[in-house]
Amino acid sequence: MAVAPILSDDAAGAEALAVFDDIRAKRQTDYVNNFWRALAADPALLKATWDRLQVVMGPGSLDPLVKEMIYIAVSVTNGCSYCIHSHTAAAKAKGMTAAQHGELMAVIAMASQTNALATALQVPVDSRFLAEEERG
Amino acid sequence: MAVAPILSDDAAGAEALAVFDDIRAKRQTDYVNNFWRALAADPALLKATWDRLQVVMGPGSLDPLVKEMIYIAVSVTNGCSYCIHSHTAAAKAKGMTAAQHGELMAVIAMASQTNALATALQVPVDSRFLAEEERG
Amino acid sequence: MAVAPILSDDAAGAEALAVFDDIRAKRQTDYVNNFWRALAADPALLKATWDRLQVVMGPGSLDPLVKEMIYIAVSVTNGCSYCIHSHTAAAKAKGMTAAQHGELMAVIAMASQTNALATALQVPVDSRFLAEEERG
Amino acid sequence: MAVAPILSDDAAGAEALAVFDDIRAKRQTDYVNNFWRALAADPALLKATWDRLQVVMGPGSLDPLVKEMIYIAVSVTNGCSYCIHSHTAAAKAKGMTAAQHGELMAVIAMASQTNALATALQVPVDSRFLAEEERG
Amino acid sequence: MAVAPILSDDAAGAEALAVFDDIRAKRQTDYVNNFWRALAADPALLKATWDRLQVVMGPGSLDPLVKEMIYIAVSVTNGCSYCIHSHTAAAKAKGMTAAQHGELMAVIAMASQTNALATALQVPVDSRFLAEEERG
Amino acid sequence: MAVAPILSDDAAGAEALAVFDDIRAKRQTDYVNNFWRALAADPALLKATWDRLQVVMGPGSLDPLVKEMIYIAVSVTNGCSYCIHSHTAAAKAKGMTAAQHGELMAVIAMASQTNALATALQVPVDSRFLAEEERG
Repeated sequence: MAVAPILSDDAAGAEALAVFDDIRAKRQTDYVNNFWRALAADPALLKATWDRLQVVMGPGSLDPLVKEMIYIAVSVTNGCSYCIHSHTAAAKAKGMTAAQHGELMAVIAMASQTNALATALQVPVDSRFLAEEERG
Repeated sequence: MAVAPILSDDAAGAEALAVFDDIRAKRQTDYVNNFWRALAADPALLKATWDRLQVVMGPGSLDPLVKEMIYIAVSVTNGCSYCIHSHTAAAKAKGMTAAQHGELMAVIAMASQTNALATALQVPVDSRFLAEEERG
Repeated sequence: MAVAPILSDDAAGAEALAVFDDIRAKRQTDYVNNFWRALAADPALLKATWDRLQVVMGPGSLDPLVKEMIYIAVSVTNGCSYCIHSHTAAAKAKGMTAAQHGELMAVIAMASQTNALATALQVPVDSRFLAEEERG
Repeated sequence: MAVAPILSDDAAGAEALAVFDDIRAKRQTDYVNNFWRALAADPALLKATWDRLQVVMGPGSLDPLVKEMIYIAVSVTNGCSYCIHSHTAAAKAKGMTAAQHGELMAVIAMASQTNALATALQVPVDSRFLAEEERG
Repeated sequence: MAVAPILSDDAAGAEALAVFDDIRAKRQTDYVNNFWRALAADPALLKATWDRLQVVMGPGSLDPLVKEMIYIAVSVTNGCSYCIHSHTAAAKAKGMTAAQHGELMAVIAMASQTNALATALQVPVDSRFLAEEERG
Repeated sequence: MAVAPILSDDAAGAEALAVFDDIRAKRQTDYVNNFWRALAADPALLKATWDRLQVVMGPGSLDPLVKEMIYIAVSVTNGCSYCIHSHTAAAKAKGMTAAQHGELMAVIAMASQTNALATALQVPVDSRFLAEEERG
């Protein structure tokens, strides 16, 4: 009756196990966290999610730690307890300092309150923010 | 009957006008955007919000552009149209490139979908993410 | 292709028209606002929503203006532009002063930011808030 | 100090007990789940909620399992842990297969990410989606 | 300064244009809606989103119309105006009747209110909903 | 690896301890709840949040209990479990009766459902709600 089982390696099918192995190889760890084990009930969804995550969080024009902090900001606003835990851990593993964590909290709190104020007052967007609506 | 008037300099009281002047001085511009003009109906709230914003978005351990991107991530997740417009403009003014904007979009989208999956499956937080619950 | 038509009296069916008439009678006005006209495409949903609203917002232990302010708080947090407009108008019609509106904004903004902080830090609920979990 | 007591049959008043009995009769079970027992502190709210639920989830033009899946989609997006658990259980009881559950997850995840993208980019609604704004 | 330009075929790069052509081919229409044209500024994100959408919304164990209704439920709860418009249009194109639309509205409204109640009362999940927490 | 430690008086630095002492003095209690102890890792954020809370929730034109109920409404809609617990406790301490709590629940539930309906149907704001868009 639980929403989803947390599948062990033994319980996972071959397709899911291949993803678990890829997670272990890419992350250089033996540990596969619960999120992936819960997704394993649907191996195609598991694989699509993992593959996409690699692309999105991989090398690019944004620093990996910055990406984790953006991930945390979204997860906090969505109220996803699991994701806040896992990505805060990931950010710390990537070097987030206590000072940076504090500033991240402060920015999230600030945005949350001005979001509420702008919405509550139904402030119209300034024309200069709308300008140059290019239609190629 | 409108939710809030967008106060011109002439319509704003002395306390609000002082904040407008501070905004112009700090930002080195003549332009005061609608958010502040809508808040001006309550000068104390206007001043508290502006003063706090200066502290939070001011110099610290996170890059100013990174702070803007975190602000955008929260604003998108809260669906605040005004804030998305104003902070995307601010991020571009601080040098956000098209490639960085694209990656920001991709991370927000990725987090949104894994947030939904972790919540939908009610994945229990791994004990290793909960460990060391220090009580000083 | 619009999501929902805004039905005029002529376009509304008999069942919807009866609700429109009840709205006019109870509110002592000729005006039926768009929300009800959009719901009129499904007269049973229209009637159930209107009937329930009368019960919930009717006389009780909370002041009618307080109920409107609670309604606004929920609508702001959900980002419902229509509802923010209509219930702010209703609150003003029930006597909400500019000072009260300002304080309402400030409380909503404060709650939004501490909600974000408590969630971001995943603060465990104090045992004293959980005590007396009565099972009658 | 708990937010709400979970009332046993003995602790519930006569009006709440009558609703409990109706729940048992309609669902053909002895079990009344915590949601209703928490609502029992306000018997009028309990009864209104239960009565409305019967109408909404009762026979109509949508399949009962489809209604449960829509209910889950809303509950996930609102982050309501209780509701996700109870309605996933209800969906399984109504025959939701593992494959259907997986597809439900995938659609929710997909919508979550495109919602975020459309909001982040503030995409203007195509005129063809707005056309035929009928005013009866 | 607009958040994102809506790229015409002429303004889109080759990679984006290839996706536009695929959209036209798969949907058997000349029309490419604004969502895709806004994403075209980041062709890789455009392609990944479109490719994934095809898989998720493609043939499976859930009816295509059911998938659209689930999509609408998520979009409404997230308050994504663009997505509500586009997916309501898609659902109508796939045969959603007025009666089905009305029931969809009613289920979304019902879930929204019981989500709020379960959260407001912090109802603990019944042990029977948590049982069988399988760990493979 | 926990998201944030809950700092005891001994573990808190001098700046945080001063805030703890102020909390104890203003609230006339020995107890400092977990929210403040979690914030103590960033004393500046702790102090700014506590100072602002005092202003916002202090004497004004809205009754203190009304402010707590508005706070609860926001917290429920944001799904902040910690805040729902702490502010429901605060509201009870300020005299919220069972009847008032029931009505608060009912208004929150009502707003949640009409928010969903207005959003789902994308109801256009009535011109009379938009009128008098004053520009000082």
